[in-house]
Amino acid sequence: MTLWNQVTIIGTGLIGGSLGLALKQAGAAQRIVGVGHRQTTLDRAVAGGAADAGTLDPAEGVRGSDLVVLATAVGLFEPLLAQAAGDLDDGALVIDVGSTKAQVVRTLTPLVPEGRFFVGCHPIAGSEKRGVDYADADLFAGATCVVTPTDDTPAEAVARTVATWEAVGMHVVQMAPAAHDRLLGEVSHLPHVAAAALVLTVTPDGEPLTGTGWTDLTRIASADPALWRDILATNTEGVVRALEAFEQSLGALRAALAAGDTATLQRLLAEAKERRDRIVGR
Amino acid sequence: MTLWNQVTIIGTGLIGGSLGLALKQAGAAQRIVGVGHRQTTLDRAVAGGAADAGTLDPAEGVRGSDLVVLATAVGLFEPLLAQAAGDLDDGALVIDVGSTKAQVVRTLTPLVPEGRFFVGCHPIAGSEKRGVDYADADLFAGATCVVTPTDDTPAEAVARTVATWEAVGMHVVQMAPAAHDRLLGEVSHLPHVAAAALVLTVTPDGEPLTGTGWTDLTRIASADPALWRDILATNTEGVVRALEAFEQSLGALRAALAAGDTATLQRLLAEAKERRDRIVGR
Repeated sequence: MTLWNQVTIIGTGLIGGSLGLALKQAGAAQRIVGVGHRQTTLDRAVAGGAADAGTLDPAEGVRGSDLVVLATAVGLFEPLLAQAAGDLDDGALVIDVGSTKAQVVRTLTPLVPEGRFFVGCHPIAGSEKRGVDYADADLFAGATCVVTPTDDTPAEAVARTVATWEAVGMHVVQMAPAAHDRLLGEVSHLPHVAAAALVLTVTPDGEPLTGTGWTDLTRIASADPALWRDILATNTEGVVRALEAFEQSLGALRAALAAGDTATLQRLLAEAKERRDRIVGR
Repeated sequence: MTLWNQVTIIGTGLIGGSLGLALKQAGAAQRIVGVGHRQTTLDRAVAGGAADAGTLDPAEGVRGSDLVVLATAVGLFEPLLAQAAGDLDDGALVIDVGSTKAQVVRTLTPLVPEGRFFVGCHPIAGSEKRGVDYADADLFAGATCVVTPTDDTPAEAVARTVATWEAVGMHVVQMAPAAHDRLLGEVSHLPHVAAAALVLTVTPDGEPLTGTGWTDLTRIASADPALWRDILATNTEGVVRALEAFEQSLGALRAALAAGDTATLQRLLAEAKERRDRIVGR
């Protein structure tokens, strides 16, 4: 089902490249233009089928497109959209794939001229890997995408945004940007901070004793520090709130342990197991 | 290389069953006797080749063996060894596979009669799976085993213990029981507490937004609560000490975030990534 005549994807890395492949595979876009900051990356995106053409110039890249997707690191959305905003086609829809939403929506919405629309999005899909060479048309299939319209977002823009993510196989949920940030603080940003703190806690003597459990548990600490700095810094409130809740949970476990209260300790561990088994098995 | 004429493995679950298979495969034991608390489990251990014979009676099980391995949950070591101690052969070596060492060594050492020897061990190998049906002769290959002799342990007993773990492919390191507990507190027990606390922090609205990163990071929270209650409760000091260090690491990340100090935030995240990449790649 063709949703778009021409889609511009700004940032043809793992996510942008995978979206290009997925939109093509679904027949949802007739033509895809990639915008990048290195010609070699653009060439690889075109060679791999993630885009039909590429340009280094965001303004040139968005001309003639009815959908523009911001798929770079969160910190680059604002300058890139500012460069391209004056060249957006009348009626064009701009969406993003950023991991935080309140600040992104607040910053980008006023940059979009009248008659063009912005809808914040967070497809919860990804990989440790980076770059268009790992792009995968099935990256989004079966995963959840959060779409964060505001009270001012036209229903038509929301509907077309939802249809786009559904076209690549995602389950879409809608909520306000602040609600997204609070919840992602709990399930994504806090775990990242915790994984980094766990790594920093290991002393040199402990390093040789780490096993497969430790490796699994700390995997996300090996993600790109600059990317995560931006994610955390654009959701300070959500992350601090999640950290406070986490410290309470940790404190309850620690108090039971320190008091020798093995009944409470087991109850808390059992509650965690039951909740995780239910969440993972859903 | 035959190290043992007869080995008794008390507790033929995943670890005990795997050790039986591995000792046989290495030719390190001529005969293996399994001791369990359910006949069906023993029957499956024998049918699967992890033991040559099985008994429900620990005292009967250890007779005629020159090596006895305690491979049940940590909390059962003391009562089981108490039942069997009087029937240990002269010169028999008793080892365990428990995840904590100071309390285990302190409790079990006086139970072993003169002329028999106890050496604490912790093979850092395992799986989420439980039970002899998942036993794997290669479970230990390439992993680390910590052996924790005391000042009173005869060198001969230590040497035979080390040879046993090396026979099944493990890299053996020796340290005092308290050092083991402090380091395992950092790399295993703390991560388990953190994973449980992360699960308990997620609100019902956040549950549908968990992704593969969250699933990986919290995997160990789905382990057996009773088993982990025992592990944590027998290493209170090590776990509380690790929790204190963890809270300091968390606090440093949180302070940088709350202060908007993105340079420090990135430095901490980069330090965690560098350390993890080095540890995992070692």
